[in-house]
Amino acid sequence: MSENRTEIASLGEFGLIEQLTKNIELQNASSILGVGDDAAVIDHFGKQTVITTDLLLEGIHFDLMYTPLKHLGYKSVVVNLSDIYAMNAEPTQITLSIGISNRFSVEALNEFYEGVYAACEKYGVDLIGGDTSASQKGFVISVTAIGEVAPDKFVKRSTAQKGDLICVSGNLGGAFLGLTLMEREKRIYLENPQLQPDLENESYIVGRLLKPEARKDMIAFFAENEIVPTSMMDISDGLSSEVLHLCKQSGLGCRIYEEKLPVADEARKAAFKFGLDPTVCALNGGEDYELIFTLKQEDYDRITLNEEISVVGYMTDAHEGSKLLSRGGNSFDLTAQGWQAFHV
Amino acid sequence: MSENRTEIASLGEFGLIEQLTKNIELQNASSILGVGDDAAVIDHFGKQTVITTDLLLEGIHFDLMYTPLKHLGYKSVVVNLSDIYAMNAEPTQITLSIGISNRFSVEALNEFYEGVYAACEKYGVDLIGGDTSASQKGFVISVTAIGEVAPDKFVKRSTAQKGDLICVSGNLGGAFLGLTLMEREKRIYLENPQLQPDLENESYIVGRLLKPEARKDMIAFFAENEIVPTSMMDISDGLSSEVLHLCKQSGLGCRIYEEKLPVADEARKAAFKFGLDPTVCALNGGEDYELIFTLKQEDYDRITLNEEISVVGYMTDAHEGSKLLSRGGNSFDLTAQGWQAFHV
Repeated sequence: MSENRTEIASLGEFGLIEQLTKNIELQNASSILGVGDDAAVIDHFGKQTVITTDLLLEGIHFDLMYTPLKHLGYKSVVVNLSDIYAMNAEPTQITLSIGISNRFSVEALNEFYEGVYAACEKYGVDLIGGDTSASQKGFVISVTAIGEVAPDKFVKRSTAQKGDLICVSGNLGGAFLGLTLMEREKRIYLENPQLQPDLENESYIVGRLLKPEARKDMIAFFAENEIVPTSMMDISDGLSSEVLHLCKQSGLGCRIYEEKLPVADEARKAAFKFGLDPTVCALNGGEDYELIFTLKQEDYDRITLNEEISVVGYMTDAHEGSKLLSRGGNSFDLTAQGWQAFHV
Repeated sequence: MSENRTEIASLGEFGLIEQLTKNIELQNASSILGVGDDAAVIDHFGKQTVITTDLLLEGIHFDLMYTPLKHLGYKSVVVNLSDIYAMNAEPTQITLSIGISNRFSVEALNEFYEGVYAACEKYGVDLIGGDTSASQKGFVISVTAIGEVAPDKFVKRSTAQKGDLICVSGNLGGAFLGLTLMEREKRIYLENPQLQPDLENESYIVGRLLKPEARKDMIAFFAENEIVPTSMMDISDGLSSEVLHLCKQSGLGCRIYEEKLPVADEARKAAFKFGLDPTVCALNGGEDYELIFTLKQEDYDRITLNEEISVVGYMTDAHEGSKLLSRGGNSFDLTAQGWQAFHV
């Protein structure tokens, strides 16, 4: 954080909003009216509008002890854009609401917004509205992302077909290993504040956790190669959980091959260091924000040259269940290990 | 609250979402795809899309000690729809994100959603998406409302002209007086839990606080009578604060007449009972969710028969300032007393 500290109270709500939004330049022709009125106005010129929203709460989704505010701003945008791409759509606008306690300074908020604007610029989306509120405790972030898609060209979760290939972009498990590392370093620091965190050689997994990217490139690749996935979603809760969604909503089962799961070397090394099974990290670790999608088998040739895509299995009839086939040749039921926050 | 208590953990995230959203029936043809995928899809068929979002945080925006959850759900939707109407647009969809601690039961959440669905039904909007999360402390509610408007027919805050009439729908100050009453009863209860709250004859102001409505009827009236306000916004922070926004954004000043301020008899009586000035309540009390709008003087004849509209003043040049003319003939500068939450 910067050394100056300006109290939020010294600006007031409207001064604060002005301060945080004064440099916005709308990039999209569809952004008719942005921040500063009761609502924003967009015009998608004959396209359909895609909307998604995510809530990020301090202590549940992020820990400010090891999350730089700029990264948090960036990630808050990216996780929403990921949902728009997962519809095979292009994000165009976001709204951002925040609730902040007075332990935050204006400088700290500026850092958060720097990250928000960096993500907006990288992905070509406009910040067009939001709400700024005090909070009693904890930093509250709510982002809504808006996108566009040619009429009826969006891709749902429920339309996979038996025999379709199950594909994954990028690598899995890295964000979970980054979280494991940061939580370990936090514990060590709390026990002994003199010890410096040991993050050497771990920039890959730390980056996967703190600064994820959304797979804009995949949507562009599909468009260039005239590929339309039969179903798609993004991987926020872990591959197991997501593939079970595709199965349930499409009324199908699946086979996933352990040996095909994409895990980066850095993540594999980190897993061994922490005594974790890389396969479990890839299946159940969340927050990778990769895409999982299904393709007709005849589209296989179109993706073989793209090193960012791994075919990890195929869809089956529902009665065949949803199974992982291990390297050793055994078959396990896939289970969703995702969201356990209510048990904490 | 109902007597049964089902723990949220017993359903899990997806079970909970299914439970809360299973009865949704989409009402609008523009709602192409609703809850259950990465994002929702809407098609406004050649109209422009209007978007607004509001965050409601426990302890800042509402107190669960005197706010029934069903009313809270209703109000969470209504305050967002009010922003859409304030653009002269029709709301069509909402997304709803909530963060809840495990002190909430599934039954309590069902009550909240009953209110949400009641508002959706009354105003003809579809709930098409959202996010459900645990929170460490406090109930977090984030609603985004989406609406539609014929191309370039939306009404901004910045387009009032000198000489335009300043109009207000309904009555002002009631919600603030309801809040004053509830805070007083809460204090009495906390000091002496045996005493029953004294809400007799106060249903008007309590209703204004706990169950506000958005002025859908005004937008319909404008359309029927071919009236286009020159500027408009909704009154959430108090008339003074809002009229100053219109002045600032339109580069103008204003004259407001104290004797023209619409205050309901019930609110006036409550103000005297509490030793408050009804004019101050009307100017600085927030949360009435009425509309303030400006009209060309030649449109005056079109509104005289509508008893729900009061002309409270007119726009002037900026150098004439923004003034209240009192019953006694004195002139006071209008000041925004709105949002002081960061000083708490």
